[in-house]
Amino acid sequence: MSKHTDTLTLVDLRLERNSPTPLHRQMYVQIRDLIVDGRLTAGQPIPSSRAIASTYDVSRSTVVVAFEQLAMEGYINGRVGDATRVAEVLRSETEAPRRGITRPALNRPLLSQRGTTLANAGGAPRDISQLVPFAPGMPAINAFPHALWGQLSLRRWRKPDASLLSYGESAGYRPLREAIAGYVGATRGARCSADQVIIVNGSFQAIEMALRLLSNPDDPILLEDPGYAGMRGTAAAVGLRAVPVPVDAEGFRVDDAIRACPQARLAYVTPSHQMPTGAILSASRRMQLLAWAQRCKGWIIEDDYDGVFRYRGQPLASLQGIDEFNRVIYVSTFSKVLVPALRLAYVVAPPDLVDAFMAARRFSDRHSPGVDQAVLTDFMEQGHFARHLRRMRSLYEERQALFIKEANLAIGDDLVIDPSPAGMHLVGRFRRRVDDTKVAAAAWELGVSVTPLSTFYLGKSKQSGLVCGFTQADARATRAAMQALAQAIRRVG
Amino acid sequence: MSKHTDTLTLVDLRLERNSPTPLHRQMYVQIRDLIVDGRLTAGQPIPSSRAIASTYDVSRSTVVVAFEQLAMEGYINGRVGDATRVAEVLRSETEAPRRGITRPALNRPLLSQRGTTLANAGGAPRDISQLVPFAPGMPAINAFPHALWGQLSLRRWRKPDASLLSYGESAGYRPLREAIAGYVGATRGARCSADQVIIVNGSFQAIEMALRLLSNPDDPILLEDPGYAGMRGTAAAVGLRAVPVPVDAEGFRVDDAIRACPQARLAYVTPSHQMPTGAILSASRRMQLLAWAQRCKGWIIEDDYDGVFRYRGQPLASLQGIDEFNRVIYVSTFSKVLVPALRLAYVVAPPDLVDAFMAARRFSDRHSPGVDQAVLTDFMEQGHFARHLRRMRSLYEERQALFIKEANLAIGDDLVIDPSPAGMHLVGRFRRRVDDTKVAAAAWELGVSVTPLSTFYLGKSKQSGLVCGFTQADARATRAAMQALAQAIRRVG
Repeated sequence: MSKHTDTLTLVDLRLERNSPTPLHRQMYVQIRDLIVDGRLTAGQPIPSSRAIASTYDVSRSTVVVAFEQLAMEGYINGRVGDATRVAEVLRSETEAPRRGITRPALNRPLLSQRGTTLANAGGAPRDISQLVPFAPGMPAINAFPHALWGQLSLRRWRKPDASLLSYGESAGYRPLREAIAGYVGATRGARCSADQVIIVNGSFQAIEMALRLLSNPDDPILLEDPGYAGMRGTAAAVGLRAVPVPVDAEGFRVDDAIRACPQARLAYVTPSHQMPTGAILSASRRMQLLAWAQRCKGWIIEDDYDGVFRYRGQPLASLQGIDEFNRVIYVSTFSKVLVPALRLAYVVAPPDLVDAFMAARRFSDRHSPGVDQAVLTDFMEQGHFARHLRRMRSLYEERQALFIKEANLAIGDDLVIDPSPAGMHLVGRFRRRVDDTKVAAAAWELGVSVTPLSTFYLGKSKQSGLVCGFTQADARATRAAMQALAQAIRRVG
Repeated sequence: MSKHTDTLTLVDLRLERNSPTPLHRQMYVQIRDLIVDGRLTAGQPIPSSRAIASTYDVSRSTVVVAFEQLAMEGYINGRVGDATRVAEVLRSETEAPRRGITRPALNRPLLSQRGTTLANAGGAPRDISQLVPFAPGMPAINAFPHALWGQLSLRRWRKPDASLLSYGESAGYRPLREAIAGYVGATRGARCSADQVIIVNGSFQAIEMALRLLSNPDDPILLEDPGYAGMRGTAAAVGLRAVPVPVDAEGFRVDDAIRACPQARLAYVTPSHQMPTGAILSASRRMQLLAWAQRCKGWIIEDDYDGVFRYRGQPLASLQGIDEFNRVIYVSTFSKVLVPALRLAYVVAPPDLVDAFMAARRFSDRHSPGVDQAVLTDFMEQGHFARHLRRMRSLYEERQALFIKEANLAIGDDLVIDPSPAGMHLVGRFRRRVDDTKVAAAAWELGVSVTPLSTFYLGKSKQSGLVCGFTQADARATRAAMQALAQAIRRVG
């Protein structure tokens, strides 16, 4: 045997006979790695399959399969036994990435400038379990008719329309778009055709697309202050400059906004139930805001995250419904009225923007899962949705009353908590100076999730308080969590 | 009655008693619109609820509910009957958006510069039915065990883990990430931990995020030429400049790439089965490409869209598996091995990039649907996935043989079609000069979807041919479609 041949046969291939990985695969992988590592070098001849088989006590066919694979991938030239040699896999030694070399420090930043902006934007929703009492915006998961949903799901999967298994339309499943157009018209006073409805995976997918379509990096965006931190995050992630706009009892102060940033062309508002204050954007402000958008050809993103939960009067009509000039991009979600994990939400886009949204979608995730959309359509068309909504309205009304009663007993001396005619959360304001982030951290330790009011503020003037969801926890959990919250407040002192 | 009072009572409210919309809602909406339109103006007094009820022959409570709503939203001051007046909803007449005004021409472009780039990038996947014989990349939808999937789905929905209904981790459902890490290790030679696996809605969601994280607008990106048009689209959508890199029998010509654009830091390749040529990136080119990435701290996006479908030898190992320096971002999808409508795909990210991917996800759609991910996990863990994959491998092998046999009979004089040891499509090259886009259009008219080879080219030198999927259509459909394709070719002449 030549010296070269020795090199290969003497190499310590470790073939494990009891492994689930076939022997030929083990052989292929180990020899490939020897070549990649440079331990077998170009030009070395490969011994005959018989010799290798005998050295390792395996069948010849095992060897043949392994070497055919190596040949097909170009690690060796020709077939085994046929004057085969290790191929010239590397242009030059210096270019070879070698195993075991210490990884050199990166000279370039890992991410691009745009990527750094994206990855480092603060305010993203936390990636933690929200199955904890008082987590704001969490619906009553246990009250969701999951078994019924499963039945509807099974029915669709049993006899699926082929179009629901294939690639679908990027705007979403047409019957769902129609059902939603009817629903937002009836319950939210939106005026739209199904053509304007686009199904997305969560409302922030739509908001992020809208921002990218309608703004350039460094453009200003008018944001409610206090306002939802997740929106600040998404705005920052696409490179926008946040302009805080004070919120009062009538909501977003349009005059202040225009004064603070006359060149702004984008505004994000939660007019039906301001996050977190609960203010309803007054009719006069609505008119002003629409007039502003029309005048400067700006855009209003209306986030109607929990507008259907109204415990007094009718749900307030959406801003979209009174917009005559197609300047409102209305987004809403099924995360709050059903469950978040469905990842189904929708945008009602001005007709002129529909194509742009669909294009943006096509370049990334194309569309939302087909059967899930069909199941939601069935759920709506068969009346389950309306029934669930009614049940949740009355459940949440009860739970709010209980929350307030328990809060007054346990923490009424510390916090003022006013009832809310709408939504899924309440704001408690401290009667004295307290660091709300410390209270929230202490509460989290005790298994209660409240969001410090101060974290909703973008500007310097912050109020201290707690934003508490009352919709998820049942009576017992609410009582227990309230005791824990009282303890957390006492701890911080 | 005063003149003002007359204004309201005499206005023609049209209340429809048979409408599903309650009377109070009709009344509210119509009066609100009168105020928004300026037909009722600020300061006008509102008549008593009794007077309105009598004028319209409705109950007083109907009127009270309608006006409470108007008051709550700020359209009127005070409650009905209480010296109530229409509120000052508009700052000034000139600001009022009025109904019926002709919509003015927009002076600003509809979209931002970034939005225009995004919306107008060509090459997006078409939003048309792909349930047509020969559509490239469409799996055998009918062979998918949909009823079984429905059963698994029902089981999960019946007793759902609460965490699967709530917001989930942005990287995906942990057990699925683990199952995938095992699967890509075993079948694709990838080397990764579950921590590096991120679940996405389709592989292009991951690719689009990667591009935004790792590049700035106007940066170059090395793209295979010919290559997948959808990738050109996504690259253009995020503002990148495509640098075409020729593909030969060994795949992506790395030397040419470096020469053409020494400053490039991003490359997109389909090494296991080049789209569309089917070339396998040779071992030597793999080493060169990895060395390039390591040297310049560049990134390689490895799109392994159909690498598991290998009909001769073992599936080729992924580039990721031999990358020692964490420069490869590996993406793959379940759209091809299962069905596209699931919208489930994954990225194996270098450890350093995992957080950035997760952040990007959190600012938009947060995560993929919970239960769908759990069902896929069950499907994999219970062995259904491996079984389906084996069945599809042998089905597709049969279908390819049939396709080639039928093609040789029907269009063998026009096209050279070589068999492929891998993948889901074949490339037919015309024996003479034929406009492949015309043939494809004619075929589409006859119910057959083939993609012109010329559309895969980015540079000026284009080859004419047809890219045909052979996996979707059964024997009968294949025979019929082949006749139609022959007819289309004859038509174009």
